[in-house]
Amino acid sequence: MSGVLYGVGLGPGAPDLITLRAARLIEGARVVAYPTLAGGQSFARSIAADLIAPAAVEIVMDVPMSVERAPAQAAYDAGAARIAAALEAGDDVVCLCEGDPFFYGSFMYLFARLSDRFRCEVVPGVTSIAACAARAGRPLVARNERLTVLPGPLPEDELRDRIAGAESVAIMKVGRHLAKIRNVIAGLGLLDAAVYVERASLPQEVVCPLSEAPETAPYFSMILLTKGADPWL
Amino acid sequence: MSGVLYGVGLGPGAPDLITLRAARLIEGARVVAYPTLAGGQSFARSIAADLIAPAAVEIVMDVPMSVERAPAQAAYDAGAARIAAALEAGDDVVCLCEGDPFFYGSFMYLFARLSDRFRCEVVPGVTSIAACAARAGRPLVARNERLTVLPGPLPEDELRDRIAGAESVAIMKVGRHLAKIRNVIAGLGLLDAAVYVERASLPQEVVCPLSEAPETAPYFSMILLTKGADPWL
Repeated sequence: MSGVLYGVGLGPGAPDLITLRAARLIEGARVVAYPTLAGGQSFARSIAADLIAPAAVEIVMDVPMSVERAPAQAAYDAGAARIAAALEAGDDVVCLCEGDPFFYGSFMYLFARLSDRFRCEVVPGVTSIAACAARAGRPLVARNERLTVLPGPLPEDELRDRIAGAESVAIMKVGRHLAKIRNVIAGLGLLDAAVYVERASLPQEVVCPLSEAPETAPYFSMILLTKGADPWL
Repeated sequence: MSGVLYGVGLGPGAPDLITLRAARLIEGARVVAYPTLAGGQSFARSIAADLIAPAAVEIVMDVPMSVERAPAQAAYDAGAARIAAALEAGDDVVCLCEGDPFFYGSFMYLFARLSDRFRCEVVPGVTSIAACAARAGRPLVARNERLTVLPGPLPEDELRDRIAGAESVAIMKVGRHLAKIRNVIAGLGLLDAAVYVERASLPQEVVCPLSEAPETAPYFSMILLTKGADPWL
């Protein structure tokens, strides 16, 4: 009997925003797996750190920083092979994923490689969008409103068109695209409706109007535009 | 000292998809509050039932079924007044919300009425979108892909235009709009890319291709279109 591959969402960063199911799976895991970026710390592992058994085997996939896809593909190929070996030996493998595994999560790369050969269960997690809205005190969508989720790296013209035609907007992965995105939002006259959130739910969290956002933003930052939300029933 | 108003997301339905923070708050609550629809059972309360202390006071807001807004507004006005009285008496009040409080959640109506007078904390929850994608085995968005969230009650023409210009799409609140939505998706030639999910994470869950969906859908049903997702890094 092969083991089960679990893709477990850990939420936005605060350890108590993990679900009960995810916590139980991690505490019982003999094998956990997670990616790191270019030898850095794993954010996902840090969220779950207090739950991982000391004796657990940790499969670390170190993904190199590169514009080319091949080196990252090789890292996921190698990680998937190690995970497959553990599954074939009968161990379940719990893959740690910040946020939700299927919402911009790297777990998708393992799912694509392994889900046709092994039983796979995804445990959904709290997304950064829900966490940012909660911390900013900004209802996202009510009734028949639409929500558009846009990645910050999109080209300026496309961002402008998409935001102009949207109601509520969440812009992910702001990072080094902050100045470009701010420019687009200001050009649309929406600066007053925009809030900037960095590392939601963590001690280093920043929440402020976009007009007062810092000059440089980390990858884990977001801009919320809730121009359409009218929560007063 | 007034109490704190907590808007607590409970996730999609399975009791173990509640976060650790939400579980702790509910277990410790002397006062919980939640809406019911036209005298029916509260879905939110059913998710959290095992966590609510037997001695807890329960503030129930019964929202009448009506096209007019005024009767529902009156129900929330009355509920907000009872919650305010508890907060003023120094009790914290934990409002139970299925899914995430700020994502189509009725908690927004209490937040709009009370957050200017009382300290308010929102605990984000797992959204139905994340749960449906997990259960359907459908990655939602990767890399620079966009996600569009549309409510099923939107007019047919608007749904068609929005879906045609989108990448991944989640259509919420399908219910009695199922035939209309299916018609739109079929007309766009996207039927093969669409999956139907009903009551994700609950024992009565249904997951199937949209082409095989039942004739009638409950309110808590969703259609996912992940035509753009390419999770193979």
